[in-house]
Amino acid sequence: MTPSTQRPGRRRCEDVRLRGFSSRVSVEEAAAWLDAHGERLAAEDVAARQAVGRVVAGPLRAAASYPAALRAAEDGYALRSRETIGAGTYNPLRLALRPFDAPLGEGAAALVTAGSGLPAGADAVLPFSAAQVDGAWLEVTGAVAEGAGVEREGQDVRSGAEPVATPRLLRPEDAALLAALGLERLSAVRRPRVRLVVAGPKRAAGASTADADGPVLERLVARDGGVVEGVVRAAGGRSALASAMAPPGADAILVVGRTGTGPDDEAPLALSEVGELVLHGVALRPGGSAGMGLAGAAPVVLLPGAPLACQCAYELLAGRLVRRLGGRDPRLPHAVEEAEVRSKIVSAVGFVDACWVRLADGRAEPIASAEDAGLGAAAGADGFVLVPAPLEGYPPGSRVTVYRYDH
Amino acid sequence: MTPSTQRPGRRRCEDVRLRGFSSRVSVEEAAAWLDAHGERLAAEDVAARQAVGRVVAGPLRAAASYPAALRAAEDGYALRSRETIGAGTYNPLRLALRPFDAPLGEGAAALVTAGSGLPAGADAVLPFSAAQVDGAWLEVTGAVAEGAGVEREGQDVRSGAEPVATPRLLRPEDAALLAALGLERLSAVRRPRVRLVVAGPKRAAGASTADADGPVLERLVARDGGVVEGVVRAAGGRSALASAMAPPGADAILVVGRTGTGPDDEAPLALSEVGELVLHGVALRPGGSAGMGLAGAAPVVLLPGAPLACQCAYELLAGRLVRRLGGRDPRLPHAVEEAEVRSKIVSAVGFVDACWVRLADGRAEPIASAEDAGLGAAAGADGFVLVPAPLEGYPPGSRVTVYRYDH
Repeated sequence: MTPSTQRPGRRRCEDVRLRGFSSRVSVEEAAAWLDAHGERLAAEDVAARQAVGRVVAGPLRAAASYPAALRAAEDGYALRSRETIGAGTYNPLRLALRPFDAPLGEGAAALVTAGSGLPAGADAVLPFSAAQVDGAWLEVTGAVAEGAGVEREGQDVRSGAEPVATPRLLRPEDAALLAALGLERLSAVRRPRVRLVVAGPKRAAGASTADADGPVLERLVARDGGVVEGVVRAAGGRSALASAMAPPGADAILVVGRTGTGPDDEAPLALSEVGELVLHGVALRPGGSAGMGLAGAAPVVLLPGAPLACQCAYELLAGRLVRRLGGRDPRLPHAVEEAEVRSKIVSAVGFVDACWVRLADGRAEPIASAEDAGLGAAAGADGFVLVPAPLEGYPPGSRVTVYRYDH
Repeated sequence: MTPSTQRPGRRRCEDVRLRGFSSRVSVEEAAAWLDAHGERLAAEDVAARQAVGRVVAGPLRAAASYPAALRAAEDGYALRSRETIGAGTYNPLRLALRPFDAPLGEGAAALVTAGSGLPAGADAVLPFSAAQVDGAWLEVTGAVAEGAGVEREGQDVRSGAEPVATPRLLRPEDAALLAALGLERLSAVRRPRVRLVVAGPKRAAGASTADADGPVLERLVARDGGVVEGVVRAAGGRSALASAMAPPGADAILVVGRTGTGPDDEAPLALSEVGELVLHGVALRPGGSAGMGLAGAAPVVLLPGAPLACQCAYELLAGRLVRRLGGRDPRLPHAVEEAEVRSKIVSAVGFVDACWVRLADGRAEPIASAEDAGLGAAAGADGFVLVPAPLEGYPPGSRVTVYRYDH
């Protein structure tokens, strides 16, 4: 089962139909080719209010300080801290209550609420628990240090500062930062336009599963920040596939189905016809009949039609391309969990093998190997393990990284 | 700083304005009250194609087996495995090539492709690497075992099986399973309808940050599976807030701002007026002025207006309610990572304290504590740590759970 691996682009890809793959490219080399053809897209100007979920491209520089001026961080009484020295329950000091929106004279205090500006002269906010109101007077029953209960100008973000290292995906929480900084427009990486080309069912196939791949891929592309510009159903064979790949406009083209060794597996030939098939056959299970190349300037990834093979090739190859084009972290977006293997994980040497697992108490129980996994088993899994090509699996007790489905 | 905690509902909530909180409810008790008022909503019938991202409610039972019949799992030649016994490179055996769509006679083989049905009589698929075509004949140069290269009826999912334990959030990948099972409709938990009531700026506040909370909450509610049915801006005080809470129709109401101890912090009073304020003041930092109660049948969560306090109270309290109503895992949805504390994390005893951290090489470096955190620091963090109420922090070298922002 050990495939001889080859470097992409070294030779013309063979026609594998009715023959099988005589050699395969390693997952690492396939990923390297995608990385070389997945340069981050140019930035565009977007409204800050629509920017959550986008990757901010340029520096996110604060146009003004936040807070813009000294202000109360808590509800209480603004005052001069030195005037509270020595105050206590048995030594209450009296200050005159004044309005908060005028400069504060000596011996005075003003009621303020969190977020409001401090009257000139005040340097601290006394909490309610250390004060009693007595008509127009405040009895101070505790001392407060200079700066207590206040925020300085720019304490949170100074004017000109760059609180976020870019490029970075903007989180829901960042909407508050953008509002605080008064940013209305910002520069975000353009979302990759992805064309999905779904091959029609094979002539010999009683049932097609390719229609199941389209809905999955549309959602995975969206998850990775891409925009599916269109789903093209290429019924018929090579010429229909070629016609679907030919038009320019997409940043990436994903072709689903017709990548294998059957007589009508013509996606690789169609790519050769319309552009360049750079590699076909990856040392990955499931998903090993994936291929890639160029149609005009657009990188094309050929994905197997079998659903799990399609998903696996998307996650490790096509998804990486989409994520890179959009300026995201190219690695798998799943949350990872280190776990101990409960039962032996088997894998083919020479292939990166996916193995679906259930997680319980920090232990991973394999429920389906790359060879026998089906949709039912994968749906029942909590995540998957990737076994590197040199290994033939993991014995019980090994520590493995699980890519979780639930994040 | 240790608050005396109280059980919710034991006594009428005090008016904390100009006084401060004399007691607070623990985060656990507040969460328990929300859990008691956040029963999973009823299920509704939805189209399977729109069901990804929804929580499937009832059992997801396969209406038919998948595959529906014996089929080829690989491209190759369907044949009777016993007729290949003894075949080898130096002992090729000859079989007659026949079409795949007719029953297979003795001594015959048929070209099949992955996913196609097997002709009657065949029990295995021979790979191309073990065969040579010679006109109308196939030379078999390797033996194949019964069942090799084929999938049995129902091997993936048997008719009547329930491949997914429900309730469960449907993943992008599940779209393929639903298509394979031929499911067109399914039963999903209704998405919680959430009303956001945003209080207008306080009279004494120079700048309002409440407008920054709305956009954040809209996205966090969507992340948790809720539907924001409307954002109501309640300018003015108590009566405007009460009017916004009063109309029925929402499964949950989140009121933002006006929860503190200032003179116009009237959200708790408004809730008392229109329904019942059950608790006000939670031993949580930031976010400790949160409150909750009922407006008619709808649970109401009062969230502080200060952005980080709002986010923190949403994540630990309101978000938990939204997730439970929608049938999701009520715990924080962030990916978690165990990390070693690099520098001391400080925290107030008696409060669950959030501490924002940067992660590097499996170590967590605190960059802002509950007391001094601002939007800038939080935006620069990779995640946050929650310090339980009994602890005063974590010394360097401690192991902590980090809730990551990037998942």
